[in-house]
Amino acid sequence: MAELLDRNTRAEALDTLKGWSPVEGRDAITRTFEFKNFVEAFGFMTKVALRAEKMNHHPEWSNVYRTVVVTLSTHDAGGLTELDVKLARAIDRLAGE
Amino acid sequence: MAELLDRNTRAEALDTLKGWSPVEGRDAITRTFEFKNFVEAFGFMTKVALRAEKMNHHPEWSNVYRTVVVTLSTHDAGGLTELDVKLARAIDRLAGE
Repeated sequence: MAELLDRNTRAEALDTLKGWSPVEGRDAITRTFEFKNFVEAFGFMTKVALRAEKMNHHPEWSNVYRTVVVTLSTHDAGGLTELDVKLARAIDRLAGE
Repeated sequence: MAELLDRNTRAEALDTLKGWSPVEGRDAITRTFEFKNFVEAFGFMTKVALRAEKMNHHPEWSNVYRTVVVTLSTHDAGGLTELDVKLARAIDRLAGE
């Protein structure tokens, strides 16, 4: 099972994950993505879904038209693990960064 | 532009839309769908996304693993319209009902 990030690893990860912020009151990170329209937003979600399923690590996310809000945390571990950092980096790449 | 439902049409619609509830503090309806796993949940979302895009009327929704929460309201009209009722019925069909 993935282990919670220690303080140093967490600080380093958050420092390198541009655009992701800690979630208040939870050991989780979140990022909001804006696209041109719904098709672009859902296209992004589809790419993330395939990646997440392959990693067997899934986002919590919401979508309203062209906006997608992604929150990452490892439920089994009760907080942020290396899996979340890895998925966040993959999501950033899939968002075209 | 779609018009807000009048009181009678709204009551009738809510009565026939099983599983959908009014959202507190908003003129909107919501329903929670549970699937077997993430693949089933996201497969459902993909079907709804294609339908929504075709209708040019999109849900607000969130997903955590096998759970999908859908909220419908017509932003341009500031509340529930015939479009929401139509999309709700389509979503119920796509969920396999």
